Amino acid sequence: MRRTVFQDEHETFRARVRDLIETEVVPLYPEWEAAGRVPRDFYRRLGKLGIFGFGIPEEFGGSGEKSFKFNAVIAEECARAGVTFGGASAHLALPATLVTYTTREQKERWLPGFVTGDLMTAIAITEPEAGSDLAGLRTSAELSEDGTHYVLNGAKAYVSGGAQADLVLVACRTGTDGSDRRGGMSLLAVDTRAPGVTVETGAATLGLRSSDIVAMTFSDVRVPAGDVVGGLGEAFACLAEIFPQERLGIAVGAYAHAAAAVHLATEYVRERTAFGKPVAAFQNTKFVLADCKVTVNALQAVVDQALDAFDAGELTAEEAAATKLYCTEAAPGVIDRCLQLHGGLGFTTDSPIARLYADNRASRIFGGTSEIMRTIVAKSMGL
Amino acid sequence: MRRTVFQDEHETFRARVRDLIETEVVPLYPEWEAAGRVPRDFYRRLGKLGIFGFGIPEEFGGSGEKSFKFNAVIAEECARAGVTFGGASAHLALPATLVTYTTREQKERWLPGFVTGDLMTAIAITEPEAGSDLAGLRTSAELSEDGTHYVLNGAKAYVSGGAQADLVLVACRTGTDGSDRRGGMSLLAVDTRAPGVTVETGAATLGLRSSDIVAMTFSDVRVPAGDVVGGLGEAFACLAEIFPQERLGIAVGAYAHAAAAVHLATEYVRERTAFGKPVAAFQNTKFVLADCKVTVNALQAVVDQALDAFDAGELTAEEAAATKLYCTEAAPGVIDRCLQLHGGLGFTTDSPIARLYADNRASRIFGGTSEIMRTIVAKSMGL
Amino acid sequence: MRRTVFQDEHETFRARVRDLIETEVVPLYPEWEAAGRVPRDFYRRLGKLGIFGFGIPEEFGGSGEKSFKFNAVIAEECARAGVTFGGASAHLALPATLVTYTTREQKERWLPGFVTGDLMTAIAITEPEAGSDLAGLRTSAELSEDGTHYVLNGAKAYVSGGAQADLVLVACRTGTDGSDRRGGMSLLAVDTRAPGVTVETGAATLGLRSSDIVAMTFSDVRVPAGDVVGGLGEAFACLAEIFPQERLGIAVGAYAHAAAAVHLATEYVRERTAFGKPVAAFQNTKFVLADCKVTVNALQAVVDQALDAFDAGELTAEEAAATKLYCTEAAPGVIDRCLQLHGGLGFTTDSPIARLYADNRASRIFGGTSEIMRTIVAKSMGL
Amino acid sequence: MRRTVFQDEHETFRARVRDLIETEVVPLYPEWEAAGRVPRDFYRRLGKLGIFGFGIPEEFGGSGEKSFKFNAVIAEECARAGVTFGGASAHLALPATLVTYTTREQKERWLPGFVTGDLMTAIAITEPEAGSDLAGLRTSAELSEDGTHYVLNGAKAYVSGGAQADLVLVACRTGTDGSDRRGGMSLLAVDTRAPGVTVETGAATLGLRSSDIVAMTFSDVRVPAGDVVGGLGEAFACLAEIFPQERLGIAVGAYAHAAAAVHLATEYVRERTAFGKPVAAFQNTKFVLADCKVTVNALQAVVDQALDAFDAGELTAEEAAATKLYCTEAAPGVIDRCLQLHGGLGFTTDSPIARLYADNRASRIFGGTSEIMRTIVAKSMGL
Repeated sequence: MRRTVFQDEHETFRARVRDLIETEVVPLYPEWEAAGRVPRDFYRRLGKLGIFGFGIPEEFGGSGEKSFKFNAVIAEECARAGVTFGGASAHLALPATLVTYTTREQKERWLPGFVTGDLMTAIAITEPEAGSDLAGLRTSAELSEDGTHYVLNGAKAYVSGGAQADLVLVACRTGTDGSDRRGGMSLLAVDTRAPGVTVETGAATLGLRSSDIVAMTFSDVRVPAGDVVGGLGEAFACLAEIFPQERLGIAVGAYAHAAAAVHLATEYVRERTAFGKPVAAFQNTKFVLADCKVTVNALQAVVDQALDAFDAGELTAEEAAATKLYCTEAAPGVIDRCLQLHGGLGFTTDSPIARLYADNRASRIFGGTSEIMRTIVAKSMGL
Repeated sequence: MRRTVFQDEHETFRARVRDLIETEVVPLYPEWEAAGRVPRDFYRRLGKLGIFGFGIPEEFGGSGEKSFKFNAVIAEECARAGVTFGGASAHLALPATLVTYTTREQKERWLPGFVTGDLMTAIAITEPEAGSDLAGLRTSAELSEDGTHYVLNGAKAYVSGGAQADLVLVACRTGTDGSDRRGGMSLLAVDTRAPGVTVETGAATLGLRSSDIVAMTFSDVRVPAGDVVGGLGEAFACLAEIFPQERLGIAVGAYAHAAAAVHLATEYVRERTAFGKPVAAFQNTKFVLADCKVTVNALQAVVDQALDAFDAGELTAEEAAATKLYCTEAAPGVIDRCLQLHGGLGFTTDSPIARLYADNRASRIFGGTSEIMRTIVAKSMGL
Repeated sequence: MRRTVFQDEHETFRARVRDLIETEVVPLYPEWEAAGRVPRDFYRRLGKLGIFGFGIPEEFGGSGEKSFKFNAVIAEECARAGVTFGGASAHLALPATLVTYTTREQKERWLPGFVTGDLMTAIAITEPEAGSDLAGLRTSAELSEDGTHYVLNGAKAYVSGGAQADLVLVACRTGTDGSDRRGGMSLLAVDTRAPGVTVETGAATLGLRSSDIVAMTFSDVRVPAGDVVGGLGEAFACLAEIFPQERLGIAVGAYAHAAAAVHLATEYVRERTAFGKPVAAFQNTKFVLADCKVTVNALQAVVDQALDAFDAGELTAEEAAATKLYCTEAAPGVIDRCLQLHGGLGFTTDSPIARLYADNRASRIFGGTSEIMRTIVAKSMGL
Repeated sequence: MRRTVFQDEHETFRARVRDLIETEVVPLYPEWEAAGRVPRDFYRRLGKLGIFGFGIPEEFGGSGEKSFKFNAVIAEECARAGVTFGGASAHLALPATLVTYTTREQKERWLPGFVTGDLMTAIAITEPEAGSDLAGLRTSAELSEDGTHYVLNGAKAYVSGGAQADLVLVACRTGTDGSDRRGGMSLLAVDTRAPGVTVETGAATLGLRSSDIVAMTFSDVRVPAGDVVGGLGEAFACLAEIFPQERLGIAVGAYAHAAAAVHLATEYVRERTAFGKPVAAFQNTKFVLADCKVTVNALQAVVDQALDAFDAGELTAEEAAATKLYCTEAAPGVIDRCLQLHGGLGFTTDSPIARLYADNRASRIFGGTSEIMRTIVAKSMGL
């Protein structure tokens, strides 16, 4: 059915992104994956193309454009080629937070660099021992006696874009009120060059290999008191803003993975022959791809509804969770079946389909696991 | 997310249908199921309520209203109670055909009764030996020597509403051109009181027990030459009109079954206790219903897109097939899991959920099997 | 792979059962389903054929044969034809209990009639409000002042074979010790002709339509004090004996349903043509049936291991639960796909496949739901 | 249920293998994966431990032991730790071929080195353009004019252990009989140091990262005429011997992956806490693992039957295909769900579960895709 979610401006942008990916990403992607990150300069390149300006007011160098649909275009185009923009995806999820929850002074300090890619950002929430249970975070920051800075201690895991980020938003305890598991939690903007910040790049990931996913340790890191984001004890309020967008982003990504998988498999089976005829000529191929296609239709319908609602400021946190749950749970089957149609090629990471398969596995875990999403959705059903 | 597909007029209609179902259908439904059909008078009751007037021009007694969304409302309300309007569903699928493909004289003869429920219609396509392969139909009609009537011979299977229909559209061979498997196929409007028409009501069905699904035999049945619908040899053209609507209707029905199942299960688990607490309090219950709910969201998004496209005259045959395939394949898992949450009650046909489960099984078979839908979708993908 | 679980004696018995089903069950089965039960005389016929003698010592008229594999043969042969022996399946599950937990006097009174089919038995555990939560049963029996009998009050649901049973084992509270939810529960053998026993046959079931599944009410029913089975307060001990066998029986039945479904579908697709060739010639048909076949292989391997273990007296309650869980969860997909291959025929209960589909739905609910089985299995894993 | 497939000798061997893996493999495995292969010396270490002697007669240095169950033990123990023996798995699949189809002279030349690990072997069948369609192979060898050697030309893909193999069995055309697609195909044993043999190690794989999976090119490679294995034109006969064992091996591996996944997840959820309690305490965790466990039971039952049949010389090619199909299709769901229970850790290849997930994806493709297996199984069903 005719897709109504995108306008001309999105399609123009799409053409630009597709060109960028074909010429500047695909040829180098194996190297990026081997290195575990994209080159620092690539971020500046994205900045130059205006990709980091969405959601940032013009006065700070941004485009003022707030539509999340540009992010959707990026996700779709990356998926088509089985690539990612590495740690930039973390950066791309933060404009709303950095605009809504920052002071004017912070905006002036951070946003111009944010837009150019000179100041890359990331967010560090999950801890090795706490997983999705935010109220169980142990990283803590204590105000210095003179009140000028916080002293931050703790460890974070799975920080996308962590090694190359200049500024990391760290969720931590700044209060000690034991009676409220969620109270006393703040977001500190930590300069990654500050003494005491350590990055561990050891652990390879199943997918998202160029995403610079690292563990970070903070040992007596001094964070200026003026670098609290969103107000002291307001981490949950900020996250309530970050999570729906992040989850919508992951949902869109999962849809894009599935749509790309069908696209890739359809092209492949048309060209590839087996037993003397195109693989496309086998009834099993047709049936598998038809099933995949109609699931992609459903994913698209769900994602498009959510994109429209989000741009209209109407997507609730519960709906974002429901969208993530559906998309991330429905997409993997499509991707898996499309990989299978690639035969041996599907098992080599030379092929975009194999990368989609591996990258996509994160989507049911990151941004809140499916189990957390189910809990949220059930609650919204009155259960 | 906010549903935009229905307007006030649909909601007013919905209230009327819901009331009808609660007061006039639910209390009698076990009897109807045992009898294998709804009472003939119930059809006239539906006629009186204006339910058969959709899609029929005002000059012939109809409402002139063409929106298929009223059918969707009926499907949703029936599903909520786990009931059907019996053979009326076949009747409700035919207005477009009987308006588009009939002559003025036929319209005048048939449509007024169609609207009041005095002239019930059904359609007989499938044959015991041919299944979904329309080009393999063997029922045939030969023009009499004087050219005044056709002599019809053959057998049809799975005619919904067949025993109580007054007029049955029968797909049959009226030509003998062997070179074209699809050629020479016509639709004859057969008066069921004509000599030679036999109805077999023997075979019970798994579900849709009140739908009056019968086998029909035609032995030298004389059909007036003026009762060809859509022109001689034009059966495939008529069916190309009938099928998309029928398939959309089945898709909507499957969505409605799934949505109703979630509704019923959610209510049930809130009231029912086990091991000292409401069934709703178990994590498994929450998770199962959350998964079901997000699938229902997807079904709704797909169905609503298709309803809008259909009303705008833009739903292609391929899209109708894709919609049916997705909805009828995604709904059963939801219904099955919701039945499971009902425990033993789910196995008794006293419970609406058990009837939904049984009724729904038809949806992957009737109106073209999922295998046929996959073939159509694959073709539309260029495979 | 060669199946080693059956010996010559089982195969001889199988031939006898198959012959019985073909000649005496299949032709009448539609009538039995419509009536909701098998004729009372058919039970005596089964008795005459020795089918009720398994597990009963020779001195009481039984065969002394203890192998559960004969029950497996019956399940397989019934499934092949898509029939059941109605309420006899409840009867067939009780020999172990009636031999292990009865006094000599009770054996003498009950077993000879049990073997001939003159004294049919059933078991009533589940209550309308309690489902699988046995400790929540409310039916209670109070000892009369003179100690000669119990006065039984309460209601039971889903009693298979209930309307035609002569003796029903009723689980009920005979003690009032509130500290132990499982204490004070006994099994009473209730004569169904006793005043105060009422049977409600109203509710039709989704499947197992000839199984005489009824609700029973007990109003001040006098049960002789000598008719406690297994000792006062020992209901849980008896059920610990009954459940593993019942669950193994349901697992075997589920396997048998799936195996029969593959058998029926394979035969059907070989004979049926579509689009000018046998349905068996389509790649989709081949692939679907291959997938079904290997799942049936797995079901068979699991069931055969369990049958050997049961006959060796080694099948634990946890293993029985695991076997039921696996088999009843893996079989439905096979049956559903095989039904689909039958097209419209699969939706008429004329076809064995439709009956298998409907009957099989009970297997995840009766004898303890899958949810209960998962709880038991998880506990056995130390979770 | 008690597992009867292994005897004391297998358990003794298991203890040895487990110890080897813990001390010599696990600590180095990340390095091996990064390098794309295991160190050459590790093969000699395996040789010293007697692991390459199974299936090789004592006179050539082997153990004479033919039971495939030792291979099963290796698969199970590797899976437990989420590791592999790299390219050795290809080597371990070849004893039967190298014993059955070789001349005494070839045995004397090759087998002693085979056993010690000094002469590593691999097999090259699949071609970039032909996939699972063996009859479509294009690699060809022409006999030199003097009849002393063959001149081999062509390219092979997905050769496990290829870069470190000393001897590669290459399936190629040695005849030109166009009438028989399978005729004129031979296996040549190619010395990988011979001029004209090129190895491409570029393409990383999704999983099995230490398995040294390479593409090989042969340009005018001279292969001595005495190095044909199994006789000229007899490649299909040899493969008929190789395939069942290879497929059984993959099936066993898939089972082992699933069993290990359940083991790993069970341990993990017991230790890990979330929301203030062990993850094991959540009902969802219990239910997911219970479902996984009973599927593993089924996999084990199927694998054990096949192992017994194989050791007894009774496993047919069709049964091997059915075993591979079932196991490789049932295992992934288990592994995926167990990975999910690991949360973020499941996405890092530090964790054995992530490696199992990635490694396992090959099993539906290598050794003949699931599509090929379905074709074989369907044929064996008479479809």
